[in-house]
Amino acid sequence: MIQSIEDANNAVVQKIVQASPFLVDVVPADSVIPELKEKVLLHAGTPIDFHDMTGPIQGSCIGAILFEGWADSEEKAVVMLKQEEVRFIPCHHVKAVGPMGGITSANMPVMVVENRPSGNRAYCTMNEGIGKVLRFGAYNEEVVNRLKWMQKVLGPAIARSLKHTEEGINLNVIVARAITMGDEFHQRNIAASALFMKELVPYLIQAELKTDDLASVIKFLSDTEQFFLNVMMVACKAVMDGARTIQEGTIITAMTRNGRDFGIRISGLGDEWFTAPVTTPQGLFFSGFSQTEASPDIGDSAITETYGVGGLAMIAAPGVTRFVGAGGFDDALAISNEMKEICMGHNPNLPIPTWNFQGACVGIDIRKVVETGITPIINTGIAHREAGVGQIGAGTVRAPLACFEKALVALANKLGIS
Amino acid sequence: MIQSIEDANNAVVQKIVQASPFLVDVVPADSVIPELKEKVLLHAGTPIDFHDMTGPIQGSCIGAILFEGWADSEEKAVVMLKQEEVRFIPCHHVKAVGPMGGITSANMPVMVVENRPSGNRAYCTMNEGIGKVLRFGAYNEEVVNRLKWMQKVLGPAIARSLKHTEEGINLNVIVARAITMGDEFHQRNIAASALFMKELVPYLIQAELKTDDLASVIKFLSDTEQFFLNVMMVACKAVMDGARTIQEGTIITAMTRNGRDFGIRISGLGDEWFTAPVTTPQGLFFSGFSQTEASPDIGDSAITETYGVGGLAMIAAPGVTRFVGAGGFDDALAISNEMKEICMGHNPNLPIPTWNFQGACVGIDIRKVVETGITPIINTGIAHREAGVGQIGAGTVRAPLACFEKALVALANKLGIS
Repeated sequence: MIQSIEDANNAVVQKIVQASPFLVDVVPADSVIPELKEKVLLHAGTPIDFHDMTGPIQGSCIGAILFEGWADSEEKAVVMLKQEEVRFIPCHHVKAVGPMGGITSANMPVMVVENRPSGNRAYCTMNEGIGKVLRFGAYNEEVVNRLKWMQKVLGPAIARSLKHTEEGINLNVIVARAITMGDEFHQRNIAASALFMKELVPYLIQAELKTDDLASVIKFLSDTEQFFLNVMMVACKAVMDGARTIQEGTIITAMTRNGRDFGIRISGLGDEWFTAPVTTPQGLFFSGFSQTEASPDIGDSAITETYGVGGLAMIAAPGVTRFVGAGGFDDALAISNEMKEICMGHNPNLPIPTWNFQGACVGIDIRKVVETGITPIINTGIAHREAGVGQIGAGTVRAPLACFEKALVALANKLGIS
Repeated sequence: MIQSIEDANNAVVQKIVQASPFLVDVVPADSVIPELKEKVLLHAGTPIDFHDMTGPIQGSCIGAILFEGWADSEEKAVVMLKQEEVRFIPCHHVKAVGPMGGITSANMPVMVVENRPSGNRAYCTMNEGIGKVLRFGAYNEEVVNRLKWMQKVLGPAIARSLKHTEEGINLNVIVARAITMGDEFHQRNIAASALFMKELVPYLIQAELKTDDLASVIKFLSDTEQFFLNVMMVACKAVMDGARTIQEGTIITAMTRNGRDFGIRISGLGDEWFTAPVTTPQGLFFSGFSQTEASPDIGDSAITETYGVGGLAMIAAPGVTRFVGAGGFDDALAISNEMKEICMGHNPNLPIPTWNFQGACVGIDIRKVVETGITPIINTGIAHREAGVGQIGAGTVRAPLACFEKALVALANKLGIS
């Protein structure tokens, strides 16, 4: 038993700072997540039934069923879902995270990240690129065909490349560099994706792929500027799950959204979720779309903010402030300075030049959130509220205060100090 | 005849802003620079004889002679040079630029950049990476072997890749993105090099190279984080040569250093050089070296500052301020704000997020330099003052005021207003 909450929180922060995530493999999801059998899907956020899911998540479910071949038409997939033939499990319950809808099925390839000091592993699907993509609720033939290519070509190609590395790809190195290059790792991963590609390609060349496959994989990596988002998500999940082994204190260890509820976990209360209704992101919209069409907040990607980047590191990525409609350089600075008030300190591994080399935030403390009323800000993509449309913009969203208050009350009860 | 100096300067700036450099080929230097025959070398800076060159440039000459096989030993190469058997031409006199010593010989591969609107072309060797390299005055077997590999493998590989592009590689696109990613394109090109590689690799795969060659080329590009420096230099040369077609006004069109003289050209006085003694860069040194061992300022790379990046864009690259010993974020901001005072304005194509999205500086006006006494600041590598050692640090150096004063007097004389 650690003596004080402060000591416990410091121990959690030490785990975060000392973590060292490596990308070690890409494998079929069911090979590492045995819960993934036929007619089982993982989803983002806290537990939710199909009927309560937002349009884009429901759309993703249809796409996953078509990809797996559990039904051969959209109509049959919808029937299957409405009749509750498909069982749902939150990604977070099986050491995984998923972007936006987070829908993950047995035969999708997942990246495996190992957090070396703690020895734990985490999983996430790979980024599909932009346009019509499953994670934003699209499920047409183009989407399903891309998923099949990722299963048959991209996943195995990266897996074979990684076998040629000595120890996998050291993600801390890429993250530490990219945070000096304008990435905040949620809405902007251009630098990290390019550095990741630069690191991977020499091994891809050694992987003895068919020429066409090598060309298509390299073209995809070259074109997919958010490829590193999913890598960062799974790295953050591995880091935060390592930190969660300290089962005390008031540090947030997960933040996630299922379109209905915003959920958080804190170090002192293990696997328990504390939820409050999600809000809808505010931001900038692609041509032809507007705020009224925005889906309420979805996705496990807020694990990046949990780690201290994304919206919390807005100052690292002033270019993003414009993309998410959050102003200019001074606004980015104001956001990160505000976020600092609810965190334990700075991560010395992630100095941000534009913050005069202060490290990224580390350790969101729910006591500070409740005391100040300042809630974490999250940079996010915005999906259309209906299934099948996909991404329509990007913006920011605040975590609702109520889930932090609930967690604090619960912890006080546990410690007998309420 | 343009009416006023202000109009002329605006026309020059328009040429700079509207320029569009594309990397279109890599070829043996003598195929595009007919002046490069046996026993002819190009060098950085304004005209200078071998006897007046600094140690590192003399070292580079030895390396180039060994690479070309004009002599089979260091001793014989030195004799050849001391007996003035080798003729020297400044890179700038043959549409070329060269990093540090700038020594370029007939069989070295050069990149060819075409400035589309103006139709002019410029040339530069490729970056050799770090460690023992010719440009910093090293000339041992490792250096010469790498040059041979660049001649036989790297150059042809990139040339073959470029044949698969539709129009070459659009360098404005890479530069506009990388300036939002912490690069200032002189001491830091990490982002641009990664983006360049990301762009090139899909074409490299199509170039039908031998597997070993493809692997070695990709490994070299992956490891060489300053690869884009030379690309940027030749792009800036192509842009400034295009702008130089406006033969009036007071805009600087070249800045360069040969270790003895700092030379500038201005738009209103064509090919004429105005020189003053160079100073020695101040900065940070690699372990075991110090300021007393630093070579006086060398290299054509100040063409990047001429274009408005490098030291002038310090605020884009706060990470560099520490590497060159120029302080933290506020110092970077102060430097770019100071540089703005001697420039015509901002380049709208290069918004810098950390400068609240103001564009990079464009159009250094010698009238403003002389009036304010503010001289351009240049980010630079620092060579050891003796031949054969190589790079020992990085720092900043100021252009000497006297060359700007001389140019202004000469222009006043030409215009009959002195």
